[in-house]
Amino acid sequence: MQGDTLLIKSGGAAALTEWQHHFARLMPGLRVYGWDDPFVDARNVKYALVWRPDHGRLAHYPRLRLILSAAAGVDHILADPALPPNVPIVRMVTDETRERMSDFVTLSALAIVRDMPALLSAQRDGRWADELTGRLARDTRVSILGLGELGSAVAARLHANGFRVNGWARTAKSLANVRVFSGEAQLDALLAETDILVNLLPDTLATRGILGRRLFSRLPAGASLIQVGRGAHLDRQALLDALDSDRLRYAVVDVFDVEPLPPDDALRRHPKVFVTPHIASTVSYAARARQVADVLGAHLRGAPLPFVYDAKRGY
Amino acid sequence: MQGDTLLIKSGGAAALTEWQHHFARLMPGLRVYGWDDPFVDARNVKYALVWRPDHGRLAHYPRLRLILSAAAGVDHILADPALPPNVPIVRMVTDETRERMSDFVTLSALAIVRDMPALLSAQRDGRWADELTGRLARDTRVSILGLGELGSAVAARLHANGFRVNGWARTAKSLANVRVFSGEAQLDALLAETDILVNLLPDTLATRGILGRRLFSRLPAGASLIQVGRGAHLDRQALLDALDSDRLRYAVVDVFDVEPLPPDDALRRHPKVFVTPHIASTVSYAARARQVADVLGAHLRGAPLPFVYDAKRGY
Repeated sequence: MQGDTLLIKSGGAAALTEWQHHFARLMPGLRVYGWDDPFVDARNVKYALVWRPDHGRLAHYPRLRLILSAAAGVDHILADPALPPNVPIVRMVTDETRERMSDFVTLSALAIVRDMPALLSAQRDGRWADELTGRLARDTRVSILGLGELGSAVAARLHANGFRVNGWARTAKSLANVRVFSGEAQLDALLAETDILVNLLPDTLATRGILGRRLFSRLPAGASLIQVGRGAHLDRQALLDALDSDRLRYAVVDVFDVEPLPPDDALRRHPKVFVTPHIASTVSYAARARQVADVLGAHLRGAPLPFVYDAKRGY
Repeated sequence: MQGDTLLIKSGGAAALTEWQHHFARLMPGLRVYGWDDPFVDARNVKYALVWRPDHGRLAHYPRLRLILSAAAGVDHILADPALPPNVPIVRMVTDETRERMSDFVTLSALAIVRDMPALLSAQRDGRWADELTGRLARDTRVSILGLGELGSAVAARLHANGFRVNGWARTAKSLANVRVFSGEAQLDALLAETDILVNLLPDTLATRGILGRRLFSRLPAGASLIQVGRGAHLDRQALLDALDSDRLRYAVVDVFDVEPLPPDDALRRHPKVFVTPHIASTVSYAARARQVADVLGAHLRGAPLPFVYDAKRGY
């Protein structure tokens, strides 16, 4: 690998220093350059670690062997119309990703069952609202859309907190402590059994816009949404309408089709919405660098690569 | 038990109807009256289920056999200077109490590790604060003061969420997945190993005011507090000072020496404090009525009573 170059577009200049610091320890022979470094020799670029790469750029590296996503999704890479074909794309899945996402979804689900927005509003107004006792996790049905790496980890954590967990997968599967529904045919049945819906689907043609009017109308009145999938899944106006008509009770939204979400966006100002800046599963540079080093190591040894994007499945 | 009377002071007139509804099903022979019902024959009152009974009143019932607290603590009963001696006092501990407290403390601990106050403030200000990634539950040490019924349940739940759990008990004990410290001598050692301190101590002479300047000064800078014990444990001014000097990062406070907490109290308006109206472990009337029926049933059969207050232990 002596002389191999890893090109990084993730987190800007300050982050580059941190990436370089970790790779110097993990893979001392690797040359690590920033995305816009003028001294990069395009012919040496073998690996690219990217978040939203400029369209057309990845096609400029004739010896590019692997594209690594700096985050869980790969849609920000697939959006490049000039993406070089036949270069494997690897999703960023670390143990820390699963832990962070589980922490965040559990926090969100408990905040919903305990009526946290109403408690915060009472605190602001100086009211002693001791009628806000909420409900028990164990009396609450949480349905997870998407039972991949993250969905399965989140399901296990929610179960450990007493929640009654349903899940929806593209194809039938069996998962401990989860009632699994599968395929288009069983989606409505799942929705009918839902107090809190957690979206962890990948961004595919089949799932785009799935969190829309039709889906919201199939949830029991008073259900809540935790949107930690991809921004393209959500019809924002449909969500606002569902909240305002009291079909939905609360929503936690971490991902958006436009990021950063504009300061005056209606979701930000909505009293039933908790908006977070795409931090549900943000993983430390240390953990991501370890994962990249593992993938590059497997690649150099000719071993099978984990978490490779499969265009047929769509994730 | 035909003719035995249960007198209730808990939740006011609307609640009385609900209590009566549940007891009509659970113990059809029991007569259930409200605290201020003029038609109660004092000589028939055998049981009293109370929250903050008027001082002197319980002494008026010559055949009173059991006093049942409508909540987990009993200090609101012991405060009565004319409390009839030798009448057992039973704490309210239900399976639901443990579940609710575990839900609430887990919510609070996750809200702290994920920097929820800062995220909410960014949402209000229209800022996209994606540097607010917080930390992992599994990298966070939570120390629980008090390892009784509630403390043990909370410890197990926090462990299931990946937190590293310490506990402090009056006397040495062993508890799965908890590093136990015991006695006055080991308190400082526990505090030094704490990112989040959870108070679940009973209210005794030895614990009153324990959450004060001395204790806060022994915590690592940047630790946070979850106060779900009793109001008398907390020195409120010491807490405000610890927050303002950045010794403490956040505080979740559910119980107060004065309740309702006045609308203009400084804790309510503090940006680092989440104030809740004593709802951490509020249990449904149905669950509490089941528990009372179990206790009265045991009493009628002459079986040992669970959760009897022990003056020597102080809880």
